[in-house]
Amino acid sequence: MIDLRSDTVTRPTKEMLNTMIHAPVGDDVFGEDPTINKLEAMAAEMFGMEAGLFCPSGTMTNQIAIKLHTQPGDEIICHEYSHIYNYEGGGLAANSGCQTRLLKGDRGFISAEEVAANIGNPHDVHAARTSMVSVENTVNKGGGSCYELSTLEAIGKVARANNLAYHIDGARIFNALVAKNQNAKDYGKLFDTISICLSKGLGCPVGSLLLGSKEHIMQARRIRKRFGGGMRQAGYLAAAGIYALKNHIDRLAEDHEKAQVLKSALEKCSWVDRIEPVETNIVIFYLKEGLEQDAFMGMLKENGILAVGMGQGKLRFVTHLDISSTQISQVANVLENI
Amino acid sequence: MIDLRSDTVTRPTKEMLNTMIHAPVGDDVFGEDPTINKLEAMAAEMFGMEAGLFCPSGTMTNQIAIKLHTQPGDEIICHEYSHIYNYEGGGLAANSGCQTRLLKGDRGFISAEEVAANIGNPHDVHAARTSMVSVENTVNKGGGSCYELSTLEAIGKVARANNLAYHIDGARIFNALVAKNQNAKDYGKLFDTISICLSKGLGCPVGSLLLGSKEHIMQARRIRKRFGGGMRQAGYLAAAGIYALKNHIDRLAEDHEKAQVLKSALEKCSWVDRIEPVETNIVIFYLKEGLEQDAFMGMLKENGILAVGMGQGKLRFVTHLDISSTQISQVANVLENI
Amino acid sequence: MIDLRSDTVTRPTKEMLNTMIHAPVGDDVFGEDPTINKLEAMAAEMFGMEAGLFCPSGTMTNQIAIKLHTQPGDEIICHEYSHIYNYEGGGLAANSGCQTRLLKGDRGFISAEEVAANIGNPHDVHAARTSMVSVENTVNKGGGSCYELSTLEAIGKVARANNLAYHIDGARIFNALVAKNQNAKDYGKLFDTISICLSKGLGCPVGSLLLGSKEHIMQARRIRKRFGGGMRQAGYLAAAGIYALKNHIDRLAEDHEKAQVLKSALEKCSWVDRIEPVETNIVIFYLKEGLEQDAFMGMLKENGILAVGMGQGKLRFVTHLDISSTQISQVANVLENI
Amino acid sequence: MIDLRSDTVTRPTKEMLNTMIHAPVGDDVFGEDPTINKLEAMAAEMFGMEAGLFCPSGTMTNQIAIKLHTQPGDEIICHEYSHIYNYEGGGLAANSGCQTRLLKGDRGFISAEEVAANIGNPHDVHAARTSMVSVENTVNKGGGSCYELSTLEAIGKVARANNLAYHIDGARIFNALVAKNQNAKDYGKLFDTISICLSKGLGCPVGSLLLGSKEHIMQARRIRKRFGGGMRQAGYLAAAGIYALKNHIDRLAEDHEKAQVLKSALEKCSWVDRIEPVETNIVIFYLKEGLEQDAFMGMLKENGILAVGMGQGKLRFVTHLDISSTQISQVANVLENI
Repeated sequence: MIDLRSDTVTRPTKEMLNTMIHAPVGDDVFGEDPTINKLEAMAAEMFGMEAGLFCPSGTMTNQIAIKLHTQPGDEIICHEYSHIYNYEGGGLAANSGCQTRLLKGDRGFISAEEVAANIGNPHDVHAARTSMVSVENTVNKGGGSCYELSTLEAIGKVARANNLAYHIDGARIFNALVAKNQNAKDYGKLFDTISICLSKGLGCPVGSLLLGSKEHIMQARRIRKRFGGGMRQAGYLAAAGIYALKNHIDRLAEDHEKAQVLKSALEKCSWVDRIEPVETNIVIFYLKEGLEQDAFMGMLKENGILAVGMGQGKLRFVTHLDISSTQISQVANVLENI
Repeated sequence: MIDLRSDTVTRPTKEMLNTMIHAPVGDDVFGEDPTINKLEAMAAEMFGMEAGLFCPSGTMTNQIAIKLHTQPGDEIICHEYSHIYNYEGGGLAANSGCQTRLLKGDRGFISAEEVAANIGNPHDVHAARTSMVSVENTVNKGGGSCYELSTLEAIGKVARANNLAYHIDGARIFNALVAKNQNAKDYGKLFDTISICLSKGLGCPVGSLLLGSKEHIMQARRIRKRFGGGMRQAGYLAAAGIYALKNHIDRLAEDHEKAQVLKSALEKCSWVDRIEPVETNIVIFYLKEGLEQDAFMGMLKENGILAVGMGQGKLRFVTHLDISSTQISQVANVLENI
Repeated sequence: MIDLRSDTVTRPTKEMLNTMIHAPVGDDVFGEDPTINKLEAMAAEMFGMEAGLFCPSGTMTNQIAIKLHTQPGDEIICHEYSHIYNYEGGGLAANSGCQTRLLKGDRGFISAEEVAANIGNPHDVHAARTSMVSVENTVNKGGGSCYELSTLEAIGKVARANNLAYHIDGARIFNALVAKNQNAKDYGKLFDTISICLSKGLGCPVGSLLLGSKEHIMQARRIRKRFGGGMRQAGYLAAAGIYALKNHIDRLAEDHEKAQVLKSALEKCSWVDRIEPVETNIVIFYLKEGLEQDAFMGMLKENGILAVGMGQGKLRFVTHLDISSTQISQVANVLENI
Repeated sequence: MIDLRSDTVTRPTKEMLNTMIHAPVGDDVFGEDPTINKLEAMAAEMFGMEAGLFCPSGTMTNQIAIKLHTQPGDEIICHEYSHIYNYEGGGLAANSGCQTRLLKGDRGFISAEEVAANIGNPHDVHAARTSMVSVENTVNKGGGSCYELSTLEAIGKVARANNLAYHIDGARIFNALVAKNQNAKDYGKLFDTISICLSKGLGCPVGSLLLGSKEHIMQARRIRKRFGGGMRQAGYLAAAGIYALKNHIDRLAEDHEKAQVLKSALEKCSWVDRIEPVETNIVIFYLKEGLEQDAFMGMLKENGILAVGMGQGKLRFVTHLDISSTQISQVANVLENI
């Protein structure tokens, strides 16, 4: 099976696994796991932020950030495609008592103007208090779309001018950095908190980090404990993260190239209605009317290819560390012969 | 001043006040206020429901209904114009831990098809669990727009088929009943809970009721206590409600006629860009581009007229018990001479 | 029936009702009810605080105060007899996500030493963050017991030294002021927020006030809205409050004297095991072993007397505005002849 | 350093690490990690329950169980020593909106009688609704004390008779099973949910499991997602769990014997005021008055021994997999020579 469902399905490479097994570990609840401490410092340093916190998942880093920046009854401005709204089990409401002001916008992008226009009147007791803006980069539901830094900076200005916290869900931020040739430290300057994920394109088995100020990360530890995210000798997982930060970022360009190959193949297919622009490792395309999504995916599966259906004929391929060039050629071949 | 800001600004008539002062009262926390008990039974009977609960506000009856029907992490389907989303201080998230799936639709209406298309996959742990549909009738932000009963029934079918609770925010339901010549008991058959308000068109000083099954209202008492909505000798307020249910429903037709007079006047005004259809006692219109909303409202005020601004040149007039035909003529006159 | 169950069962006097009916009212959601505005200013001034907020119940003023002073996951230090813990429907957990650190102590009193010893370690992520101390005066479950001001001041020092908010549930604070000859303004200096009730000894039909700084009360308006506690022309209720603050405070001494008469009668009764010290208008006593509480209360009822059972042979009488000296003599007579 | 602070400080044995590295893994968010699936089935089978769920920590399994069994505003009956109340960051209030009815009782034990006496009146809207009883076995703060099965069964009868969910925090349940020679399946019959921990006496680096009915575990997956506890290729951690369930349960008896050696040593020490009964791997003792806890622990540290201070002269030693007999002799020697 050629598994193009998600970049989360990767298994550690031999080198990564070897690093994991030899990692020095300790009880992180006591703050004594040297590998976790090293990873947290390394990631924070990479983005020019004060501190980092290792968590079991990107959902947890996002949920902690929301809790850090809001009070129950607050409103979060974000795109209607946001992972925090669509794929975190209602957590922003259940964990933090917040509601959302959802913006529309091409491929998951929001703009400074729309943010400014959607801030609630702070003097009106009928309105929820707007306290946070959250962006996602790359945008998963937008097809791995990447923000221009200038757009993110403009939103940041509006956020600061209105005392709104500014968070970025960077589950695939490394894809954006590579694709746009951007600098991690520019993100560190801009955001109050950054969530980065090790188990997507970077190929680690488990783990995400929340980055922020010392004060925020200190509070975040308390919230992580309350969610049950405090682990003991998780240094084995952190070791994979250190390895990936050193060795698996630049190679994301290869995943992006492979996505372009898939895109080119799809462009030749008469049954494809439309393909979203491909900037990173995600290829989203739409079946022509009349084609049934589940049946189509079943047919792909019979040909050894796994994809994800996003509803109403929208399909997603994701390239990753475990997909070789040969496999990509095979997929392209299958697609063109359907 | 001719106060057209809202039908909530009314003061009790002499007859209503007289009824209030002579009401027998008791400690409702012990269930011993005869006037409250009478009002609760009377309202429930009117809608053909089992039981009713008197509350300080329509926000509380809505918030209790949401809590009754949901668990934290659930999702509520409603129109993006909904009062529960826009004007209840983020309560659905803060009090019940819920998020919303907001539908668009002309003048605040949602349809059975859109509801069906927006129910989350109950087997997907990423998705919030959809547990409730909430409609509003009339729709305040929609300009007092009224649902066809058949539309509400079609939504009800989808709700029942998907195990979703079905609530109606009937803050101005009596306007709808009168305008559409509908039967209250048809609503009682359709909804799990109904919120009705006494202090809008009906002219009472304070109070709303939540109607539902005995079981729901028993649980609602517990939630009302927790919010702090349990009052003692509130029979004085309930007496006004009994009076209004007997005497102030049919006369809403007069408010609707007055709204038509305002609409006709606005149609003659060159500075009016567009007027929403007027079905009940709310008139929403839009200023032509170039006219500044706050300045325009200031000018109205100088002419003795109070309106409400809804943002971006959208203005609202509401007719009510305390507005006479003479006053309406005065307003029409002012409008036509601007 | 002589109703000694609670001082909440009182009905307005003729004079109070007359004041109510003539009160000027307006829409308080727009901040335009002159009588509510007057009451809020008057109560705040009486306690030397900046602002006040009129609410439907004492449960709501307490629940708003808790929300003002805490974040979800925080811990509140209070006595295990506290109304906020026992009688507010789990609201401190449901509305504010807080847990309690419950202190023991004679008749509901807590001490500065115990508060200091029960503050959680702020650097330990396992511990809930202690953010608030709440006292009650008089203590209902303690038998209307009154704090010495010096005790409250000592607790206040500990609270300030540890950045804990300090709230007093003054549902019966006027009884304490009268019984102890204390000054309301001394309370205003000491507490961050004060909850006072109009519908207990003061004899109003409905209403409580939260007092605090302008900033706190501004936030409190938002929370009240979210709970559904915003009312429209509630000036009728507020008028009763103004009347009571002027005319019904000093007379509480009469209720206290009547409670002493009941106490004296009980002292003569062989079936009484023990009587709590009586300082105000509450008399709590314990039946001798072998006497069944419900049967005993039934017998009292047959003799025209209503009391409240607090479990395991603990009974409560409360004197109030609607109980005359003649009735107290009747009760004493019945008790002595059992 | 001889680290007797906790049995959580253990590092995997060579054999365990070897099993981990060779584990087949997959994306558990898709339900495709064979090792996690195997562990969940194995643990459930061991306790005779339908299903299991692997989580990052025992705090998360407890917090999920609380959420499963309660609604906001509910009350949980448990001992005042409970981990869920003292060491989970206020999670039961923040995550589930619950308050606690705390029981006292020797060494952390509660009884069926006390549970029955502390259930709130379900018909009283003032009272929080009691919905859950939670016990802990062994009780950490009770000194590793073990319940008799008959006591747990008696509590279970009260729980069932009153429709209360019954949960056991079995962070150290394997110590209890070994010490009392009890059968895991007897626990499975008794409880609605069981939380078991792999990273304490069993020596795994990370992980706990929640066990329960299929229905409960299906809901638990949703809650785990919302907390952010869903991990990807966590089979490496699960492999350690499978190894430990096979190889590290019986050997807990050795830890218990070592705890007895420490106890015997402490009995000879003049500076020890009192030692709690030692049933498993925890030794709690109290310093004589005048001895300062932190200074004493500092002195132990200088002698190469790490302990945990529990406040006011209460100290804790925990024996575990990484403590040899030789080390225990060394500690005994140090203690006797102080």
